[in-house]
Parts: sequence; structure tokens; C-alpha cells
Amino acid sequence: MDKVKVGVAGYGTIGQRLADGVALQGDMELVGVADLAPTLSIRALKERGMPYDLYLVEGAERAQFDALDIPVAGSFDGLIGKVDIMLDSSPGGVGLKNKTLYEQKGVKAIFQGGEKNEVADVFFHGYANYEKGLGANYLKLTSCNTTGLIRTVDCLDRECGGLRKVAITIIRRVADPGDYHRGLTNALKIDKAPSHQAVDLMTIMPHVEATGILVHTPVTHGHIITVLASGKHKISKDMALEAFARQPRTRIVSIDEGFLGNASLFRYARDLGNPRGDMYEVALWSDSIVESGDDIMYAISIPQEAVTIPETMDGIRAAMRMQATREEGTQATNKYLGIGKWRK
Amino acid sequence: MDKVKVGVAGYGTIGQRLADGVALQGDMELVGVADLAPTLSIRALKERGMPYDLYLVEGAERAQFDALDIPVAGSFDGLIGKVDIMLDSSPGGVGLKNKTLYEQKGVKAIFQGGEKNEVADVFFHGYANYEKGLGANYLKLTSCNTTGLIRTVDCLDRECGGLRKVAITIIRRVADPGDYHRGLTNALKIDKAPSHQAVDLMTIMPHVEATGILVHTPVTHGHIITVLASGKHKISKDMALEAFARQPRTRIVSIDEGFLGNASLFRYARDLGNPRGDMYEVALWSDSIVESGDDIMYAISIPQEAVTIPETMDGIRAAMRMQATREEGTQATNKYLGIGKWRK
Amino acid sequence: MDKVKVGVAGYGTIGQRLADGVALQGDMELVGVADLAPTLSIRALKERGMPYDLYLVEGAERAQFDALDIPVAGSFDGLIGKVDIMLDSSPGGVGLKNKTLYEQKGVKAIFQGGEKNEVADVFFHGYANYEKGLGANYLKLTSCNTTGLIRTVDCLDRECGGLRKVAITIIRRVADPGDYHRGLTNALKIDKAPSHQAVDLMTIMPHVEATGILVHTPVTHGHIITVLASGKHKISKDMALEAFARQPRTRIVSIDEGFLGNASLFRYARDLGNPRGDMYEVALWSDSIVESGDDIMYAISIPQEAVTIPETMDGIRAAMRMQATREEGTQATNKYLGIGKWRK
Amino acid sequence: MDKVKVGVAGYGTIGQRLADGVALQGDMELVGVADLAPTLSIRALKERGMPYDLYLVEGAERAQFDALDIPVAGSFDGLIGKVDIMLDSSPGGVGLKNKTLYEQKGVKAIFQGGEKNEVADVFFHGYANYEKGLGANYLKLTSCNTTGLIRTVDCLDRECGGLRKVAITIIRRVADPGDYHRGLTNALKIDKAPSHQAVDLMTIMPHVEATGILVHTPVTHGHIITVLASGKHKISKDMALEAFARQPRTRIVSIDEGFLGNASLFRYARDLGNPRGDMYEVALWSDSIVESGDDIMYAISIPQEAVTIPETMDGIRAAMRMQATREEGTQATNKYLGIGKWRK
Repeated sequence: MDKVKVGVAGYGTIGQRLADGVALQGDMELVGVADLAPTLSIRALKERGMPYDLYLVEGAERAQFDALDIPVAGSFDGLIGKVDIMLDSSPGGVGLKNKTLYEQKGVKAIFQGGEKNEVADVFFHGYANYEKGLGANYLKLTSCNTTGLIRTVDCLDRECGGLRKVAITIIRRVADPGDYHRGLTNALKIDKAPSHQAVDLMTIMPHVEATGILVHTPVTHGHIITVLASGKHKISKDMALEAFARQPRTRIVSIDEGFLGNASLFRYARDLGNPRGDMYEVALWSDSIVESGDDIMYAISIPQEAVTIPETMDGIRAAMRMQATREEGTQATNKYLGIGKWRK
Repeated sequence: MDKVKVGVAGYGTIGQRLADGVALQGDMELVGVADLAPTLSIRALKERGMPYDLYLVEGAERAQFDALDIPVAGSFDGLIGKVDIMLDSSPGGVGLKNKTLYEQKGVKAIFQGGEKNEVADVFFHGYANYEKGLGANYLKLTSCNTTGLIRTVDCLDRECGGLRKVAITIIRRVADPGDYHRGLTNALKIDKAPSHQAVDLMTIMPHVEATGILVHTPVTHGHIITVLASGKHKISKDMALEAFARQPRTRIVSIDEGFLGNASLFRYARDLGNPRGDMYEVALWSDSIVESGDDIMYAISIPQEAVTIPETMDGIRAAMRMQATREEGTQATNKYLGIGKWRK
Repeated sequence: MDKVKVGVAGYGTIGQRLADGVALQGDMELVGVADLAPTLSIRALKERGMPYDLYLVEGAERAQFDALDIPVAGSFDGLIGKVDIMLDSSPGGVGLKNKTLYEQKGVKAIFQGGEKNEVADVFFHGYANYEKGLGANYLKLTSCNTTGLIRTVDCLDRECGGLRKVAITIIRRVADPGDYHRGLTNALKIDKAPSHQAVDLMTIMPHVEATGILVHTPVTHGHIITVLASGKHKISKDMALEAFARQPRTRIVSIDEGFLGNASLFRYARDLGNPRGDMYEVALWSDSIVESGDDIMYAISIPQEAVTIPETMDGIRAAMRMQATREEGTQATNKYLGIGKWRK
Repeated sequence: MDKVKVGVAGYGTIGQRLADGVALQGDMELVGVADLAPTLSIRALKERGMPYDLYLVEGAERAQFDALDIPVAGSFDGLIGKVDIMLDSSPGGVGLKNKTLYEQKGVKAIFQGGEKNEVADVFFHGYANYEKGLGANYLKLTSCNTTGLIRTVDCLDRECGGLRKVAITIIRRVADPGDYHRGLTNALKIDKAPSHQAVDLMTIMPHVEATGILVHTPVTHGHIITVLASGKHKISKDMALEAFARQPRTRIVSIDEGFLGNASLFRYARDLGNPRGDMYEVALWSDSIVESGDDIMYAISIPQEAVTIPETMDGIRAAMRMQATREEGTQATNKYLGIGKWRK
């Protein structure tokens, strides 16, 4: 079978990781990436020797790139013309504009969480509704928090006899490492409830009632979410632990091992020598799991920069009908990304 | 009636505020404060002109104080001999040692949350179990988080037909403003669950099952707690709001008014010209309240430096039998501290 | 002599403190403050019982204030008509617009550092160029960093035989306590050199060559500046210490006393019970002073919220010719603000 | 020529990078690394498939490693017996104890900056005093700040006619990314002057007078240092820029390119796909360079985790007499580490 040809629009924090992710899939080919200006990320691409071809979107000034000796492979239109599917990680709102171009060329696309739901036919999560994405032209991924959250909620739902409702508290980082665009200094900031992540979860898993409160906190190394899940039947700590152990993209860690918080996970990913110090798995603390009556409470950590990459690969597989089922699709992604290698 | 004579041991973050609190009670007299070394707080007391008499605990070097022209009124023993009740806010563990001195002199004492429960006869909260403290010799206050949390949980329990269980997420500051002793930089840190605050809540309110997860966050302006409360009957958002409006030490705020997070509360208290920029009330965001099935979820902010002062005043009232009931005791405290003035 | 009548435009972080400062001057009368919207600061003014009359600037919606039972004394025009001089701490740029109103009414005004220099006749500092402000109609204050910096540089210049040049490094806070408008998380940010504070210093003290580098740091409790000062003759550590000891708005502190950094100063000001936890003095660490060849190096901490208040009071004194000399003007300000009380 | 056999003691933040650095040197062989406990870094080594052999130091509990299926190659003694030279990055103080073992086996060693100077025969910097290290048995590296600082100061000293003195301001991070051991929240902390880095610089470059002030700041992504350098003759901005351009381990960056601060450098290193997101070069902002009379002022950023790796490799080359001169030694290190590839 021919490899599926993939392009990436927007070579920023997410776009770089999407490109790296596609490059690792044995059954896909990364045709190139597109961007507007010689950002630090593009300068780094140049310094790395241009492992990916660069295309320029409309509005880019070619002279800026020439002045820096950054090779340009062509225009955004040219890139779209060469691919089967685009991964769009442009700044929020631009994806919707790009969609017109994709439609003109008859190219499928997957949008990231920053776009409005209306941009896509299906709001997608590899584990929760893979089948809905089969053959779809336009998918939208859940945001980083929702993607990681649903991995664990979908897992409990399937493995523990069905869930009725969840109530979440999201303690979210306000900036990525190296980010100067947003900030918060010595302050917690609260959003109006319910948080959009809870609402989004209900869109993907309509049979579960969800609500929650989100608090911004001045850190950069990932979000922590606490989840209170109410099942149709009592869920014990042991039941939950066994269920989570079967979720490939959920890494079970503990304070005793030395995982003291979100920053330990970032350090560990760097110590692993992972590219960019990234981690695809959410971490779930075994020593955070407690029973609350018949309900179960636990905490996870979300590596916000990389967590949506696997589900986006799942999305390509579904949209292109590369694998027909949730199990096959996610397993193929996991294999190529090396997810689960840590398990004995 | 003679004023009740009160002393304060340990003139640190809490001790200063206890002294200020007692000085405001029209039916109490602050005899003096005791400490060990010429800390910044003691130097500030000197610069203020010694509004409170200073006594030295064992181990203090008198010459250090003399060299700085800081007047000394006597020894710790001397202070104990002049009071009816001591408020002990010494560093953790010292209170237990001091207790021997209190017992020798037949003086009552109230210990802060840093001491072990065993130090006291009663683990006390002004609203939740005032009557248990009546006439007791040794009380221990709940910690700052637990004190503020119980205000709202006790309120729902009394006003909404009884609670069955609560599940909390504590997002706690790691240092006070101006604190160099503890810290955390760009990292969230998680504790083993359940958090001690949930366990403490059950000690004070044994009929409510409580559990929770605590996450440390690198900020200084107070904790934020989210609470998921399950009643014996459904609790609607309106029911909860009406109940909270009747809790005098709970200030209802909203994001729309400009209270964006814990730091807004600190700023507001400074704008009010409150001494030290302190606030006695917990803040409860009306726009954080959401229903989760029959349960109710909400978020509060805890001003960690001052929140336990009113309940400590309540404790004096109970231990000294100044007022016989929860209503009378807490109302007297509120009147002298000016709590509730903001209400129309 | 009649008291000088003063109004304040803009009741934000600086405006509140200007109002408090004027209220403390025995020879001035605070007529009122003006603002646009019921901010948290205005709500706090209401909760305090309206110690200052409130006037509304153009564009304010009276109904918003009425709905909150906030008394309004009149319009901005009305306020201007009642005063001799306005202190303008409006958001940057608005002061220039307001100036037209002041000119129409023949009212003097002092603008804060956020306005462009062109707004005023004189760029003013109470210690460095008081005489230039005598009788002037429009003064502009130096910014918080420059105000504090000049106190120490002017002092060395006068007391140590004249300065040739200074090179400064400014480590600046990015937000005030309680500020959600600006931020920076886990990052230092550098500005293009030279910093405007160095340039401003040369405008005020044209005989001293100044340059410097500014680095933003994610803290809220004040700036720290290191200064390398080159005199016409060698300046020893002892000479510098003796000079600084004669600068009334410079508080000499040390690490040994417990002043570990900028946050210690904030804590100390709160411990002093100062309104809002403010401090007017810059702090200068005696144990930071080191000799570099014939030059002298030292570090100061700038309490950014309150530091410009005394020099603004000086400005009123100069513009209104209340005192004829630098010595008399600054001494009057210091007396009313209680500056220097800490000295033995 | 046989490859030089190298071992690493202490597989923490620095030890991991030393091991990686040695593994990249074509003329060295990494025999193995030694540590005490199954830390996160050791667990990551296991998950990576044990690219480096692990030896256990005295006090390690073998059973802990067996329980985690972590292969152990032997004892610390065994490792020492197989190498020509040890790189010791043990916790401060342990290196001195280890030195006895090295002496017994007649093995050379290089200690990191945390050890006291007395541990070594020579206090070493690859560019400033390579020749002093030739054939030495025990070297001690300068600390991260001093290492990066000396690169630029030595460069100016050699290229601009000699330096007389430098005055530095160090704005230092308090923790590494992922570090929970140290912290500081919303506070700057100042050390007694002069900073040890200035003193250390004079030890390495005794002909230059150095002093400075150090301020701790709550960030994790590297230190920023401002330097005021006084030459024997005037140093202009152009002279400085040309000099720095010839320093291979100093990367010239600018705010206009997008390097806004220390965090931009960390992000860029991650974007480059560098292992662990590390960077060996210090960054020097071209738009920070300003003239102060005849002196020159500039700012650099220090990547604290990796900056000492190249100079440690230089140290091996000097101690083992692999290259006889500063130029040859540092060039060999640079070639193997890929330093300078970014230059056109």
C-alpha cells in the first residue's frame, strides 16, 4: 500500500510535534510543513539542516527567508496539491480560512483544539469515538486537557461497567516552557464554571454528565487534573488501577518512585532523551486514587505539548480508513510512536 | 465582667495576627506576646513603638534585644502568670512543650493547626463544634485550609438538609508573601491522597465522609479549594447560593466584579486598607457553582494568614465560657473584627 | 496659609496611594478623586465608607455606580474647578488628553512616569532638581525605578565629590501583587539596551553619563537594581555608607538582620502595619556594597507601588512654591509621611 | 592511539550530560556511570535500554536495583579500576571522599564546581588556562556561571588589548527544570557581595580585578549575567562584537530574531532537537551591548545544565595530554560536540 501523504500547516509548538509524529509513522509520508515567517522554530529547522521541506503560506515574505538562506520548497497551495490529508495547527481561526483551500483541492484535514467545533464534521478522540471518524473529511481534535482526560474517563467507562458522571478540577499551566506570549505571576486565576473541557467531554461521550472548574496556575510543565468519577456501580481503587493499567497511553506513576509532580514528568522525559523532552502519555498517580463513597477520585498530569499527537495520528488513520477499528488504529499509532515500551 | 486576659506565644505570621485580633475584642485584654529572637516581626514591633509588651521565651538572648533597644517586659513564665488563656502559635512541636508550662500555671491554651491533635482536648471550629469547646482547657484549631473549608461545608450541611460526603481538590500556595523558608519554582507538586484536610474535616464533622487531593502551586496569595458536596437530597445552585449568603465569614464574589482569582482578593484587602492587607473571610465565587447530578460543586479562596483568627477568638469565647452558644460566640467575634460589614 | 487644594485623576494602584499621601500632608487638602468605572479599588473605597469624594470622568456610566450605591460627588470638570493642582495617574496617554482640561481651567498638574516627557514643562525629582520645579505649571515625575535610583545616585553625587558615570542592571518585577494584566511565567526577559531608566537619569542629571540593561523577572514585590558608580575621585565603601545614611528616603538594611530580598521588605512593611503594606523608602543593602577599583557597586530594592509618592508631594510643594528649597520641600514631605522615623 | 577510558560518578543532572558528552568524543570511551539509588534518572537509563553500564557506589542497595530489573555491571571500585580518568559529579563534598579511591588506584579525576577548590591541583577553564591543566592529576571545573562568564571575559581580554576589571550582576535561576529540591516563590533573594563567581574569576584570571552582586530569581531556564568590563584601552561596541564572534562557545543572538530571554534559548534548543533540550553555548545578546565611557557592558545567558560539559571535555584532554595547546584542545572538543555548527 502506498504511504499516506501528509502535510502540516503551522510549524509552531504543536506543528513541530505533528511533523515529528508523522515522520515516525511507517505507513505515512511527511510531504512538508508550511508557515508564515522565519520564527525561532523555522530558524531551528534551518540549523538542523531542513529535515522537512518548507512551504510558505500566503502573506509570507520570501525575501526574509532568502536573507537567512532558508530553502523554500514552494507555496502552501503547492503543498496541499501533493498531500492526501493536512494537519492544521495554524493559530486559532486561521484553520477555518484554510479549510476553503482544502475543500478546493479535495484534501482532507484534521484541525487542532484551538479551532471552533464547526470547522469539522467530527469532534474526534482516538479511543472514545474512532469509528465516527472513519472516512470523514474534516476532523477536529480535542484540546490537550480534554484529550488526556478522556483517555482515563473512556477507560473507566469501558472497563468498570459504565460511568454516570464526572466532576473535574483542572489546574492548568498558563504557558509552555519558553513561551513569552501568555503569563501569570504569583496568582491563581479562576474561570467561570463549567470548564469547556467538561463540556467537550460530553460532546465526545454524550452518555456521561460532566462538569468542572478550571484554575490557571503560573507553571509551564503541564496541567494536573483531578477527576471524581461516578459509575453505574461502585468503583473500587483496585478496579480503577487495573483498568488504567490497560490504557496504553496512560502511564501509572507514584510519588514513591520520585514523581513528585508535573515537573518530574518533564524531567523524566528529558532524561529519557525523548526528542524535545516530550512525552505522549498522560501520567496517573497510583497514590492519588481514593474512594469517595461509591465514586473514585484520581489525579493525572497532561504533557500539553505532545499529548494530542497520538490521537491526531489516530485521526489520520480513521479519516483515511487505514485501519477499520479503534483497536487497530490506536495500536498502529502506538507502535510507531513507541508508546507503551516502558511497560514490562 | 472583667476582660479575659490573653497572651500570645510566637510572634510570627500567625502570632502577629492573633495579637491584633485579641486587641480588637472589646471583652478581652492582650497582656503581651512572647518570642525568642529579634526577627523582622519583632523589629517591626519596635519600629511601631511597642504597641504590645514583649516577653522572652527560654533560650532567648536578652543582650540581642538590648543591643537593638527593644524593651523587654519579662519572661515567658511571667506572661503566663498574668493571663487566663494563651494562644500558642509557636513553631510546630514547641506548643506541646509549652503545654507543660500552661498546665503548671493552670492556664488554658489554644494551639494552632501545626501542632498534633493530641496536644488538645478538643479539635475546634467556631461554627462546626463550638459547644464541644465550652469550658475546655486545651483546644486545637483546624489549619487554615480546613478552617475555611468547614465554614462552607458546615453551612451547606446545616442549611441544605444534611451532607453525605465531600470530595475536595486543594490548590495550595507554598509560601506566604515575604516568605523565604519554603518554595517551589515552576512546578506543581502532588501529595499522597487523601489530603489531611479531608481527614481533619471528618474529625470535626464525623457524619460527613470526606476525601481529597492536594496539589502545591508556586503562588503566595492564598489557596483555592474546589468542593464537590453530595447532600442527602439534591442541592441546586440556588439553594447553595442562599445558604452561603447566610454564612457571615464567607464573602460571595464574582469574576464579573473583577475578582479574577486569589490575588484579586489580596489586592482588594489592601485596597480596603485592612491592617497588613489581611482578610478574615473566605471568598466564594458565585460563578464557580455548578451542579453535578444531584451534587453541588464550588470554589473558595482561603486567605491563609488571617483565616484562622476569627475561629481562634471563638475558641477563647468557648473555653472561657464567655458565650454559651455557637451563635452568640461567633457573633461576638464577628462584631469586634468587623466581619460582615461589606454586606448591604 | 490656606491649604493647597489637590485632586487625583485615576484611582488605581498609584492614584490610591497619591490620595493617601495628600491626605497625610497637613498643609494640603484632598478635594477628591476621579475615575471611570466601578473597579475593585472603587468598590473598596465604597466599602471603606467613602473617605474620599468620587468624581466621574467623561465616559463613565453613572448608572453603574448608582446600582452599587456608590455616592458620586460630581464630574471631573467639577473636581478640576475646585483644586489648585491635579495629580494625574490616569492610564498612559490619558494624562496628555486631560492636560487640555487643566489648561482650560488654569490648574497646575503633575503627571506620573507613564506619560511622555512632552506632557510637562519639567521632568522632576524632589532631591535631584527641586528648584527646577519651582512655580512650574506642569511637572512629570520619574518612573518608580528611576525615582528610587536617583535618590541614591544624587546622594553619591552630592556627598562624594561628584559622579562621572553609572552603569545599572535593573531586575524588575513584571506585575504588582494582585495584578492580572501583565505576566511572565518561569522566564527572564531582556530589553534592548540602554534601559530608559538610564536615559531618564541623564535627563535629570545631565552631568552624569548613564547606561544600563533591564531584565524582567516573574516576581511582584519590587525591583532590585545594581549600580556601578564611577566618581571623579575614588569612592570607598565607608564613604558610600556614610553618604547613604544621610539620604532620608533610603533605608539601609542587611541580610544579617533578615532582609533576604525584595520580599522581606514587603513583609516588613506589612508587619509595620503600614497602610496597604506600603513603604516609601528604597532599601539599600549594606552588605551588597563592594569596591570595583575606584568605583563603587551596590544594590537597592524599589517598592514600586509607593516609591514615587514622596517625590510627587515634593512636586506639589515646588509647583505651588510652598517651600523654596530642596531641603525645605523634601523635609516637609518627609515629616508628614513619617519618613525617617525608623532612624535612631 | 587508544581511546581514553572515562568513568562518571554521580548520574544526576550534570552526570547524565557528562556521560552523553564523553560518548560523543571520538577519541574517548565511556566505560560506565556510578550511582547510589534507583533515582528517576537511573529509571530512565533502564527504560532507554541501558546505553551506559551502571556501577554501584558504596551504600547502594543492590536489591533495590534487582527488584526493578535494572542491570548492574559492578561496583564503583570496579569502575575506577577500568578507567584512565573519572569525572566526578557527585553531590557536593562526596567528591573529596571519592578522591581517596582515585588516589589509591592512581586514576586522575575532574571535579565539578560544587566541590571546594582544595580537592584539586588546578582550578580549570578550557579557554582561560588550558595549559595549567596539562598532565595534572586532579582538576576542578569552574561552576556553570563562572564557566560561561569566563568564556566572554577571557575573549575580551585576549582580543581587545587586555582587561583591567569587571563588575558583574548575576541573575540566577534557583532550580533546574524538573527540580523539587530548591525553590523560591515570588521573591528575589540577594547574596552578600562579592559573589563567589567574581572571586573564582580572579582565581582563574588573576590579572583581572572582579567583583559582583548575585540575585536569585524564581526561574528554571538559566542564568542571565550582565558584565561591565573595563579594558586597558577603550572597548567600543564594534570591537566587542567582533571579539565575541570569534569565541566558538558564545552564540550571538538578538531580540529581533526572537530571543526574548533565557526561556527563548531553552525553547530553541528543544526545537533543534538537541538531546534533553540542552545547549552548550552561552548566548550573548548583540542588542544588550552598550558603551559606558571607555567600558563595555553586555548580557549573556547561561544554560546551567550543559554549559560546563565542553570545558570538562577540555579538562580530560589537558589532564591526559591528548592535545598540547588551548587551541587544539578546545577545537577537538568543539568538533565532537558539534559546537559552532550554527555559524555560517
